[in-house]
Amino acid sequence: MEMEAAKPTIKVAAICGSLRKNSSNRGLIRAAEKICAESIKGMQIEYVDISSLPFINPDLEVNGTFPPVVEDFRKRILEADSVLFASPEYNYSVTPPLKNALDWASRPPNVWADKAAAIVNVAGGSSGMRSQFHLRQIGVFLNLHFINKPEFFLNGRQPPKKFDSQGELIDPQIQDNLKAILLALQAFTLRLRGGSPSKDGNIL
Amino acid sequence: MEMEAAKPTIKVAAICGSLRKNSSNRGLIRAAEKICAESIKGMQIEYVDISSLPFINPDLEVNGTFPPVVEDFRKRILEADSVLFASPEYNYSVTPPLKNALDWASRPPNVWADKAAAIVNVAGGSSGMRSQFHLRQIGVFLNLHFINKPEFFLNGRQPPKKFDSQGELIDPQIQDNLKAILLALQAFTLRLRGGSPSKDGNIL
Amino acid sequence: MEMEAAKPTIKVAAICGSLRKNSSNRGLIRAAEKICAESIKGMQIEYVDISSLPFINPDLEVNGTFPPVVEDFRKRILEADSVLFASPEYNYSVTPPLKNALDWASRPPNVWADKAAAIVNVAGGSSGMRSQFHLRQIGVFLNLHFINKPEFFLNGRQPPKKFDSQGELIDPQIQDNLKAILLALQAFTLRLRGGSPSKDGNIL
Amino acid sequence: MEMEAAKPTIKVAAICGSLRKNSSNRGLIRAAEKICAESIKGMQIEYVDISSLPFINPDLEVNGTFPPVVEDFRKRILEADSVLFASPEYNYSVTPPLKNALDWASRPPNVWADKAAAIVNVAGGSSGMRSQFHLRQIGVFLNLHFINKPEFFLNGRQPPKKFDSQGELIDPQIQDNLKAILLALQAFTLRLRGGSPSKDGNIL
Repeated sequence: MEMEAAKPTIKVAAICGSLRKNSSNRGLIRAAEKICAESIKGMQIEYVDISSLPFINPDLEVNGTFPPVVEDFRKRILEADSVLFASPEYNYSVTPPLKNALDWASRPPNVWADKAAAIVNVAGGSSGMRSQFHLRQIGVFLNLHFINKPEFFLNGRQPPKKFDSQGELIDPQIQDNLKAILLALQAFTLRLRGGSPSKDGNIL
Repeated sequence: MEMEAAKPTIKVAAICGSLRKNSSNRGLIRAAEKICAESIKGMQIEYVDISSLPFINPDLEVNGTFPPVVEDFRKRILEADSVLFASPEYNYSVTPPLKNALDWASRPPNVWADKAAAIVNVAGGSSGMRSQFHLRQIGVFLNLHFINKPEFFLNGRQPPKKFDSQGELIDPQIQDNLKAILLALQAFTLRLRGGSPSKDGNIL
Repeated sequence: MEMEAAKPTIKVAAICGSLRKNSSNRGLIRAAEKICAESIKGMQIEYVDISSLPFINPDLEVNGTFPPVVEDFRKRILEADSVLFASPEYNYSVTPPLKNALDWASRPPNVWADKAAAIVNVAGGSSGMRSQFHLRQIGVFLNLHFINKPEFFLNGRQPPKKFDSQGELIDPQIQDNLKAILLALQAFTLRLRGGSPSKDGNIL
Repeated sequence: MEMEAAKPTIKVAAICGSLRKNSSNRGLIRAAEKICAESIKGMQIEYVDISSLPFINPDLEVNGTFPPVVEDFRKRILEADSVLFASPEYNYSVTPPLKNALDWASRPPNVWADKAAAIVNVAGGSSGMRSQFHLRQIGVFLNLHFINKPEFFLNGRQPPKKFDSQGELIDPQIQDNLKAILLALQAFTLRLRGGSPSKDGNIL
């Protein structure tokens, strides 16, 4: 009888940078969940809601403990193997709720440390290109390892419609592009896992 | 009888990027108020509190109106001639409350448009250098005109102490540097006012 | 007899970031020259060639003098009232010849100081969006004042053809967009000229 | 008798962004060579000179071939396992010779693809902080994987002297910091090598 070692499933924390109820970026995350469940073995998307986090304020940290909702959020990030950011671009940069989530989870001990990450954007105008570089710069301090390629930008305003009235992604080409991101994230997560863990460094 | 044309006073909206009660950046703004009152004619700092703004969410805009606290904030920015940003740097970028204020006031009609602006930072590590460039990139879309020089970065952790136990700026050299920023902001505001107003443009 | 004060003509130094013979960005500059000559009063484009500058190397500065070709280049920048950058984007940033020209003219005394500036890009992919922010960050130290709006990005690869076989801009919409940039640059140059000159600052 | 599999040696291409004869960044590379030879097993620094590369110009590529000096340079990058960039910061960004080297080696086929990389800077003022983020943004398109931590910035002008009159690094603390960078680069290179190679992606 042949035995096959169970390939450990990669857990991806998916974070949406918009608080809008019908956010297209939230729709992208639902599409990613579906793609993983249907056609990517060994990878699971877990949506992590950030809408109830308070604004970051070090005064809210008392004796090294965070508000319960922050503790819960940090725990979910800590347990994830990698991270998928789906966000609009606001004024050429990241959104306030997204930056807030990034900052809370970075408080010592930084729970983002050493995870693989990927970014997808549905946005107008420049399709989110500029905000991705802000997120990547932030990620240097957070010690996130972003995949470089492929890059995913989606101009939500250009016809044809990419999302239906329920906010579900319906464009097959975009679904393929999203799947390519997820496969690249999976490959990079496994690759980083292969070696010995890097020690946590600090700025010289 | 001598007549002197009243020089119009420049009103500077001062925004603090930290919500901490004893924020050093809030201390910088108080120092700027004092410097203006005591030794800069024709310029007045008006602290604009951003701590009660809700997280930006387009769903909160109903029929083109904003929540009352947002309307009040936008009105104060609109009435200002120029803007002073005082903020820590969080994870190599701007803070969530600051980005949130920037985004609310950018909603059409963008009330930042065509104002002069300056940035001061009290921060650890890199003293805020990296976040200034994120703020400047955001400012391109907001149509803010930042002064280039002098630049003001303050590492709040390096001795000697720059602030007393009440959070007041006590270092005379830093006070001089701050005054130089305020004078440059005044000069640039007047200079931009001199010409004809630029038409509001859009992305080609 | 009517006397009209001669409106001083604004001289705009135009720099092309590509060394290619048939550079589309060089074509944009020719189009700008033509637009100014035909339909913008009081503004003149002067193409400044940067192709013969050597790679910057402080060892080439002897007793505070630069190689003759560098001196000539610096003199032309010094005499200009404002600057128009037309460039492709290479690997998400500015091109080497453009950065080289920026650096040579920044050597003390910095001859870019306090000039108005505008950027236009013909590029593939992201149309130059990312490189514009690198140029703007560089411009903070150079003390250039970039117009914020309108922004001009042109994807040279998207149909229909924007340039003919001689490399001349033939698309009327793009010509209009380019004219809008030139008018905004003219307005901003005059506006900055209106007030008292800002003192040269330094980093605090 | 015990047999130990020979650990393959990592070859690191080291590139200096300054053309100055007595460049401190060149001194950093010599120090890195020495540190590797003396105390890091399995890692070898190979200095790759970029001073004779011509300015990048697609017109110089004829039938898919590059000038011989460019071909040689590209070959040396291709053969390296990872890359060490040592550079000053010019006007808040990368230097022209460094950008030129980056661009030449990126021409299809991109020979930087999928290598690990690290950055060290000796610079004045901000110690190179700002230019590192431009290099990291460029690296996204080049598909370089930069280590996040530790970060290495050195203000060459602050006492005490870090380099002797021959340009050799003499400060033991800085030598330790440099060694920490090299060890992190080695660990990240091995870690990335562990998994299956990522496929070359493209922008969606």
